[in-house]
Amino acid sequence: MSTLFLRTLRDDPADAEVPSHKLLVRAGYVRRVAPGVYSWLPLGLRVLKAIEKVVREEMNAIGGQEILLPALLPREPYEATNRWTEYGDALFRLKDRKGADMLLGPTHEELFATLVKGEYSSYKDMPVILYQIQTKYRDEERPRAGILRGREFVMKDAYSFDLDDDGLKKAYNLHREAYQKIFERLQIKYVIVSATSGAMGGSASEEFLAESEVGEDTFVRCLESGYAANVEAVVTHAPDPKPIDGLPEAVVHDTPGTETIASLVEWANANLDGEYTAADTLKNVMVKLHAPGKDPEIVGVGVPGDREVDLKRLEASVSPAEVELLTDADFAANPFLVKGYIGPKALQANGVRYLVDPRVVDGTSWITGADEPGRHTFGLVAGRDFTPDGTIEAAEVRDGDPSPDGAGKLVSAKGIEIGHIFQLGQKYTDAFEVDVLGENGKPVRLTQGSYGVGVSRLVAVIAEQSHDDKGLRWPKTVAPFAVHLVIANKDEAAIAGAEQLAADLDAAGLEVLLDDRKASPGVKFKDAELLGMPTVVVVGRGYANGTIEIRDRFTGEATEVAVDGAVDAVVAAARG
Amino acid sequence: MSTLFLRTLRDDPADAEVPSHKLLVRAGYVRRVAPGVYSWLPLGLRVLKAIEKVVREEMNAIGGQEILLPALLPREPYEATNRWTEYGDALFRLKDRKGADMLLGPTHEELFATLVKGEYSSYKDMPVILYQIQTKYRDEERPRAGILRGREFVMKDAYSFDLDDDGLKKAYNLHREAYQKIFERLQIKYVIVSATSGAMGGSASEEFLAESEVGEDTFVRCLESGYAANVEAVVTHAPDPKPIDGLPEAVVHDTPGTETIASLVEWANANLDGEYTAADTLKNVMVKLHAPGKDPEIVGVGVPGDREVDLKRLEASVSPAEVELLTDADFAANPFLVKGYIGPKALQANGVRYLVDPRVVDGTSWITGADEPGRHTFGLVAGRDFTPDGTIEAAEVRDGDPSPDGAGKLVSAKGIEIGHIFQLGQKYTDAFEVDVLGENGKPVRLTQGSYGVGVSRLVAVIAEQSHDDKGLRWPKTVAPFAVHLVIANKDEAAIAGAEQLAADLDAAGLEVLLDDRKASPGVKFKDAELLGMPTVVVVGRGYANGTIEIRDRFTGEATEVAVDGAVDAVVAAARG
Repeated sequence: MSTLFLRTLRDDPADAEVPSHKLLVRAGYVRRVAPGVYSWLPLGLRVLKAIEKVVREEMNAIGGQEILLPALLPREPYEATNRWTEYGDALFRLKDRKGADMLLGPTHEELFATLVKGEYSSYKDMPVILYQIQTKYRDEERPRAGILRGREFVMKDAYSFDLDDDGLKKAYNLHREAYQKIFERLQIKYVIVSATSGAMGGSASEEFLAESEVGEDTFVRCLESGYAANVEAVVTHAPDPKPIDGLPEAVVHDTPGTETIASLVEWANANLDGEYTAADTLKNVMVKLHAPGKDPEIVGVGVPGDREVDLKRLEASVSPAEVELLTDADFAANPFLVKGYIGPKALQANGVRYLVDPRVVDGTSWITGADEPGRHTFGLVAGRDFTPDGTIEAAEVRDGDPSPDGAGKLVSAKGIEIGHIFQLGQKYTDAFEVDVLGENGKPVRLTQGSYGVGVSRLVAVIAEQSHDDKGLRWPKTVAPFAVHLVIANKDEAAIAGAEQLAADLDAAGLEVLLDDRKASPGVKFKDAELLGMPTVVVVGRGYANGTIEIRDRFTGEATEVAVDGAVDAVVAAARG
Repeated sequence: MSTLFLRTLRDDPADAEVPSHKLLVRAGYVRRVAPGVYSWLPLGLRVLKAIEKVVREEMNAIGGQEILLPALLPREPYEATNRWTEYGDALFRLKDRKGADMLLGPTHEELFATLVKGEYSSYKDMPVILYQIQTKYRDEERPRAGILRGREFVMKDAYSFDLDDDGLKKAYNLHREAYQKIFERLQIKYVIVSATSGAMGGSASEEFLAESEVGEDTFVRCLESGYAANVEAVVTHAPDPKPIDGLPEAVVHDTPGTETIASLVEWANANLDGEYTAADTLKNVMVKLHAPGKDPEIVGVGVPGDREVDLKRLEASVSPAEVELLTDADFAANPFLVKGYIGPKALQANGVRYLVDPRVVDGTSWITGADEPGRHTFGLVAGRDFTPDGTIEAAEVRDGDPSPDGAGKLVSAKGIEIGHIFQLGQKYTDAFEVDVLGENGKPVRLTQGSYGVGVSRLVAVIAEQSHDDKGLRWPKTVAPFAVHLVIANKDEAAIAGAEQLAADLDAAGLEVLLDDRKASPGVKFKDAELLGMPTVVVVGRGYANGTIEIRDRFTGEATEVAVDGAVDAVVAAARG
């Protein structure tokens, strides 16, 4: 440590909010160069490399072949799939000296598809799994939390190519299992969540989320069944339809000044019999869908009035279309839309698609707009008075909602995306016509999977999950050094003994960080806690009596062992 | 090989001119993505990683500490040193979503200087050597020869920081020795050449050039003494001054139509006594120097008429100023400059600096312009009739010129730059005020060195130097696999024997590329030659008689060995 390029800081960096960011900077693992752009100092780089090693080993174990594509890429392949445009501001674009458009690769589906097209031509070459561990670039709107969400980051991205869906599923499952092994070896607490509502098939996409309060991804899970899903992927548990016979007729009331659900419920409770809540109302939210290559379409979305429309869920449901709320100009152009009083009738009379929350089953009765200013219809029954054009997952998901598998209630939690596996199918192989000659002599369009692990982000995730209030605590698999050996004794014999012990441990195959600085024992202990090697060895006062101390950074336990045999004891502690 | 992501090509790629480019593409090591931008396929990546490992080991051996800086960098530090502008079109510039100027790092002097400034504050922290192995970007005007001169490439760049010149020299020599070890381990034939003419001190900068006919760098060397230098760095051997006494007076002649040296010499031989050659004339070339932060300055450069002015040498001599030839407008604005008839007199009379080739010593007599149209002066003697303002290295260097060390003659050769070591001094530490507190309590400005190895380029250099007409030939240190085991026998026992041999070699610690494809032996042998593993093992017809064959890819020698004991024999061949 007397020569290590390291300076630990007493104070948290001003821009840091989450613990991993604070500690990785204070402990000299990383340094900020620009927003979302960091340097890796010696200790940080060692953790990064250790994680890369685990990822590489598990990728090789499933037959993945490592290659390395450029980060600086030409526009054309991304133009062919429209991602040059779709990526929006998140794509770093640049021009070369000849004016050619280029980009910094955010992910490489296009390049791998064209690569396989170029190299392979026969079904005999299939299947193939290719991966790279590479620096990637995304111009995040809000880079945050140090290396947790950077604009330059290291990712392992893998791509599988298969002749058919069974092959793709097999490759997908291989990656799923490899990722489980990776995260277990890294001692990360994580959940696997469904990432899409299943429009592309039940297991088309899953995310690996590290459990963390500082996570940006909200997911829900059912503690009873273990079900877990991204909020966007939650399928609403629809009740059974109810009998329509005998339900009272719909009645229109003058409800002046009730543009909001709250005012409507207030009006009803004040003017009508019965007790009304927002859940009795049907709120109709007007949106405009922009589907690629199509004219914008105005759509009505009906959700129970006690729930907000969750735009992320709505967008996931209509993807790849984008969603925009109606503007005043849109309302002016469509006078049948009476703001605050929109009902199903006017929509359907004017050919506007009307999609409802899955809870709006036949036989449910609703208070909703009567399509005239200051008027609402009461007792409008689905399946009798209106028939929606379909259902849509657009309403917010709340703690306590029933789990889609019927096993219990959903609770929400926060997570950090650390892995994503995706059965892409033929989106990219279609774009580039990636065919091989099949066994029967006819061309077969390949089917592709895409699988990512956020390698540099994992450094922060592990720090986030394993730190304590004193500093970092690295699991043995990824610690920069196995042993932190503190010389806390100025006696020459003790110093010589410590140096000999370091040499012996090194010879025994342990990497040792030797604190040979002239600082006080107190400073050294504090730094050892901050830096977070899993096993700390102290050559201190006890050395004169023939003992050294072994401390476990995780449990805090300290054990005195005899100097004779100390090597074995430290090796056992560090490997155990 | 039946599953390896590899397709070998029969034909050379259309855009390839140099052997390494052709072979690395044909053998499936790399693939082009854009001009100067390449993908590394499995075999290529293995070579690249093997080279990285050698570089890393030797850098660690001299106490270098590995870190990793971003490639995406903010403009500010490069603005501070003016390199944002000076780099010209070779710098990839881009804007982020907020409009901030960024760049893709071509080299990181600025970032390392500011990093050290941020971390270190005391002389006790010094010295330090930091390095990274990183992807770098330069928008080369003419990317060429595949990965030999790419726009995205892998470089090892190291930087030393010291308290004083002695420290810098020590760090410089450490790197020099480390580079020698690296290139020796990689079995590269190289020379070390002086890279500057010594304005910053004799050993301020040296280049490591791999000898290669396809190299872009021309260097000269003296076979007798081992002296080698970049053409830009050659110091002209100046003759001793000659006695002036007794030399005839200068005479002006009407020499109509003699704007060129050739026509002037022709005129002299036709009209005067004696035999004249171009070497008797003094050619005065007018240039404009653009020094940073200064007004352009017109300067006259006088060289013997038998030599051209080498603009690269001239620029190296006046660096960081840039050189421009005078335009017609410049001549018009300075009527004392009579094109084709310029002589020292008019320059000195008009305050124009006049710098001459070192061969123009006192007592040499010249034919040169008389500053009037159609007139030349004959017998103008340096030190008598004119006194230059100084000498300049601007004349071309030619084969046969005397070596600066006086040991023999210079011969020129071509090389590829593979390493560059540089005593930067305080250029960057001044720009960022990188001081530490000295032993006496006063601030000490650090002095910096910069040291680069072109890691990805080395893959091409090794291929270039070691291939033969059949394909690649990798030295053992960097071969993707130690052994290429070809199954050239369809017999089941032979196949099983080959697979067992592969497993045994693997267990013995050798990496084996097993050709288990269903191709013909001929195809397999051709591929083995093209791919270039140093040791090829053939399990062929002889297997029935209990023998296999070991082939040395470099010597072409084939040895039959008994199946019993084959493992030891192969290990000996592969390690030997």
